[in-house]
Amino acid sequence: MARTQGSHSDITGPRIRAAALGLFARHGFAAVSMRQIAGAVGVQAGALYNYTPDKQTLLYELMRGHLNDLLAARAAEMPGADPMARLENFTRFHIRFHIERPDEVFIAYMELRNLEPANFTEIERLRRAYEDELETILRDGVKSGVFAVSDPRIVTYAVIAMLNGVNTWYRAGGRLSLEEVEALYWDMVRKSVSA
Amino acid sequence: MARTQGSHSDITGPRIRAAALGLFARHGFAAVSMRQIAGAVGVQAGALYNYTPDKQTLLYELMRGHLNDLLAARAAEMPGADPMARLENFTRFHIRFHIERPDEVFIAYMELRNLEPANFTEIERLRRAYEDELETILRDGVKSGVFAVSDPRIVTYAVIAMLNGVNTWYRAGGRLSLEEVEALYWDMVRKSVSA
Repeated sequence: MARTQGSHSDITGPRIRAAALGLFARHGFAAVSMRQIAGAVGVQAGALYNYTPDKQTLLYELMRGHLNDLLAARAAEMPGADPMARLENFTRFHIRFHIERPDEVFIAYMELRNLEPANFTEIERLRRAYEDELETILRDGVKSGVFAVSDPRIVTYAVIAMLNGVNTWYRAGGRLSLEEVEALYWDMVRKSVSA
Repeated sequence: MARTQGSHSDITGPRIRAAALGLFARHGFAAVSMRQIAGAVGVQAGALYNYTPDKQTLLYELMRGHLNDLLAARAAEMPGADPMARLENFTRFHIRFHIERPDEVFIAYMELRNLEPANFTEIERLRRAYEDELETILRDGVKSGVFAVSDPRIVTYAVIAMLNGVNTWYRAGGRLSLEEVEALYWDMVRKSVSA
């Protein structure tokens, strides 16, 4: 695409966020300066402030953007009404969505400690909205008798932690295909909550 | 205990490691200086070099010490021969051991990226030795017909990731006792691998 006047600012914002994401994931939020982010984008440090008021805002917007993308992608799934089918859909969706975003997943866990309180509260609200999707599936399955889950909230945490673990070992082109990984985790998730 | 001559260096090493652990967990390895660590201990920066050659060695020794403690504590467990009993013992042991070491667990995951290659190789070797304990239990249970596990290596990763997740939400004095948490996760682990 030819660059037209006015498009420059539209692409600089995403480039800044991509550079910040990579640097935060590699070195940690506290060790990265606005100057380093500017250098990675190829702009002067001062120019960064046209796009973001500060480094905290950059971190917050990365985490909020990731969770909003997650919630939007989740809302676009149409798993139907059956709790077992919804749980399988959730399991496969979670693995596929997160495997493509290793830096975002790493930062979402690692940099919570660096969010200012108001930003932390909002990130936790979005994360909870996603967790609620799984908890609702579990509660519906308990009601209909297909799941035996004594504490749907904790089981939600346990399932999501297990699925997030895929990111720590999975490599595209490795021994297992993504489809095989999904099938293996779905088997474990299904058995772990089944009545 | 009264401080006697010669004991000073014996307590300074552990104090340096404790200070480094806390600072690395709060700010990240890359953002913490030797000067900050010295300040937290209350010694001059130069004095630190009597105890450790550099910050990389401090990080490596924290991670190696954590994994050696883990392997020693695991070796002291006597779960008997039955795979189901061994799996329950592993599950409860893992939760209890890690819940008391949140900073070590956080760093073990977060700071792998900052280990120099030779140090990374050794840390991975120790981590694998621990994972092998669980994988062996799963393989023995498959042989004896109590477990149905198609890929013991991946199931090992999945179980450990699920159990590590306890650290992200558990608070002592919260809604659930540690015994209740152990029972809940053991129920999920047992079902997830059972034939």
